[in-house]
Amino acid sequence: MLCKRNTDEDRSVAERVQQLISDVRSHGDQALFELTLRFDKAALDRLYLDKADLEELAAAIGDAEKEALNVACENIRKFHQSQIRDEQQVETTPGVTCWRENRPIERVGLYIPGGTAVLPSTFLMVGVPARLAGCKEIVVCTPPQADGKINGYIAYCAVLLQIDRVYLVGGAQAIAAMAFGTETIPKADKIFGPGNQYVTKAKTMILSATGTAIDMPAGPSEVLVIADETSRPDFLAADLLAQAEHGIDSQSILVSTSSDIIDRTIEAIYTQLRELPRAAIAGKAIENSYAVKVDTLEQAMTFSNTYAPEHLILETDLWQELIGKVSNAGSVFLGHLSPESVGDYASGTNHTLPTSGFARAYSGVSVDSFVKKITFQHISPAGIRHLGPAVEVLAELEGLQAHKNAVSIRLKD
Amino acid sequence: MLCKRNTDEDRSVAERVQQLISDVRSHGDQALFELTLRFDKAALDRLYLDKADLEELAAAIGDAEKEALNVACENIRKFHQSQIRDEQQVETTPGVTCWRENRPIERVGLYIPGGTAVLPSTFLMVGVPARLAGCKEIVVCTPPQADGKINGYIAYCAVLLQIDRVYLVGGAQAIAAMAFGTETIPKADKIFGPGNQYVTKAKTMILSATGTAIDMPAGPSEVLVIADETSRPDFLAADLLAQAEHGIDSQSILVSTSSDIIDRTIEAIYTQLRELPRAAIAGKAIENSYAVKVDTLEQAMTFSNTYAPEHLILETDLWQELIGKVSNAGSVFLGHLSPESVGDYASGTNHTLPTSGFARAYSGVSVDSFVKKITFQHISPAGIRHLGPAVEVLAELEGLQAHKNAVSIRLKD
Repeated sequence: MLCKRNTDEDRSVAERVQQLISDVRSHGDQALFELTLRFDKAALDRLYLDKADLEELAAAIGDAEKEALNVACENIRKFHQSQIRDEQQVETTPGVTCWRENRPIERVGLYIPGGTAVLPSTFLMVGVPARLAGCKEIVVCTPPQADGKINGYIAYCAVLLQIDRVYLVGGAQAIAAMAFGTETIPKADKIFGPGNQYVTKAKTMILSATGTAIDMPAGPSEVLVIADETSRPDFLAADLLAQAEHGIDSQSILVSTSSDIIDRTIEAIYTQLRELPRAAIAGKAIENSYAVKVDTLEQAMTFSNTYAPEHLILETDLWQELIGKVSNAGSVFLGHLSPESVGDYASGTNHTLPTSGFARAYSGVSVDSFVKKITFQHISPAGIRHLGPAVEVLAELEGLQAHKNAVSIRLKD
Repeated sequence: MLCKRNTDEDRSVAERVQQLISDVRSHGDQALFELTLRFDKAALDRLYLDKADLEELAAAIGDAEKEALNVACENIRKFHQSQIRDEQQVETTPGVTCWRENRPIERVGLYIPGGTAVLPSTFLMVGVPARLAGCKEIVVCTPPQADGKINGYIAYCAVLLQIDRVYLVGGAQAIAAMAFGTETIPKADKIFGPGNQYVTKAKTMILSATGTAIDMPAGPSEVLVIADETSRPDFLAADLLAQAEHGIDSQSILVSTSSDIIDRTIEAIYTQLRELPRAAIAGKAIENSYAVKVDTLEQAMTFSNTYAPEHLILETDLWQELIGKVSNAGSVFLGHLSPESVGDYASGTNHTLPTSGFARAYSGVSVDSFVKKITFQHISPAGIRHLGPAVEVLAELEGLQAHKNAVSIRLKD
């Protein structure tokens, strides 16, 4: 029961999203202008900002912020670069050579949320691997402010990523625009990025209806922290609150072998909470959260693997012994000095991660998410002689005579 | 227009599948017994065959067939084994170390079609990578024959794969059973395998409704063959017919720089067609297929990349020059002696591939499909000192004070 997430289907969301998708599909740009006026209060003449607009907005941000975004971008680049590796050729039978090659997905769509939270970090997390993969066309949508502009940090990320155009569309209408294409917005082969429940619903609906690929299904963010008597209650409390401030539906779970640590952490949570500007949100999320007392770290890991958390922090001296026991998690933070915030922004790992238990089957976003691995095979005269007869038998037993004939005609030759 | 696939949404299919899913979800095993009686005409006492049953059925098949299945299994194993590689650790900032580790998806469901086509090769194509990945639980569903048994070749594959139980359920009801679990059939985290339009619809519906992962959306099989004056019309015809015999909705496309080769290939198709047991099916599929005359191989590749074929055969002396130009395809066959049949069965590459243009965004099945890549990060005292200040700036600019505090509290320490 404790491992259940709140995933009640809200039918009214599905109906409204279906309507938005139909509008965009039928009326293209016109629908986007109208919806942007309705939802974002922005009366646009043009659905995008161009390079000059982006550079102007980017130039206005502070140097410390530029530097911090540069550091994040560079670390994300270094880690994701390491994911690109040539595949080896394998001769499975003498004369039969097989291998895979990476090819970028040509047209990708990136959704960057706006509204109450401005998330330049998300832009880097999807933009950097898209660039490294070599995607030809990177379509970026984000909701405009009421003045028709976007936040300077987002603009700065566009400049860092050498993206010369940002489309001013948000919500489910942005997802629909990238799935079907409009007069202005190019159609994408795969759509990435987080968003509110309308955005998420739109992504799963277009996946189901059109097969447009998406990064992954998404739910509220969550962290599971494993602690023992070596843990620091003030660090634990800070990590649990960092997750809680995301939204009232966030979940922060503490699993500890020590009751004393649990008690002191709860105390520290309420002390730290008072200082937070987003205390109202974090406080609500903490109400939905819980602490679990276990007898051993082994039990803690079993609980964690059943829960399959998006973020897992192993805040114990024994973190090295636990690595091998992690079977379901999105991203894992090791030891007392590895808070989730560092991975959220700048360690280099991706923060687009599977929530709601999807870590049982899904990985976080990586360069792999932006490429296809295409298999190739070459068969020599010796290869067809060696392997052909087995293929003839197999085609025959599956009753596929034409499959057999494609080999026989070559063997006869 | 030529690149469009027939993907008309059949609403009656969706409604019937929805009903089947609800039945299985509400009534579990009881629904499966009833549906199996209705659709497969099998009155079962038990929903599965056990190890002894499988070994008995497997023992009855011929030695040549056993040997051919062994060869296929071994080549698939060799090629997929090469896909498993350790990831490297990256120090993105001094003291900040990041890496990925593979973890198997713990419970996978494999659907093996039955009915008119018995496809042991499909069982190997999903079973071998599941075993290599180290999945703990491999749930296999296949429809029973009317006598409550299954084909001996399927049973032999189960023995080869050391799978001790095969569930006797087919169609959309099998997908629902694996998605939700029943008294007898375990719930799976991800479901693999091809099937008819009911199976395919059930997979996309459970993906959308529950987030249960699936291998990929699936449509009718297809091949695109690129030819020039160096090609052999009899080989081309055999390859086009091998695809055509799969089903009346299969597509076989010939793209050639030579009109003469096109004419002679069409002639060869009608000659070879006469000899085929599945001539009625292949003939229908050929009616839906077409040949395209292009001026250059470059144009042929552009057409192919727009079509994004499941299978691509480069049947020209110049195949080596074309490899780099392939951007969208599932699996590629190089030269005159590499018919698709060899990859369908035994070269070692996977035959579970993206159809209907999904090759623009999806890869075929591989060991990657059966694992998650979990990111890990460890931050040392030096690491938090180096990287912490940038994270503080980024958290501040996103307005997430608790994220900042999780770093500040450690820096102060």
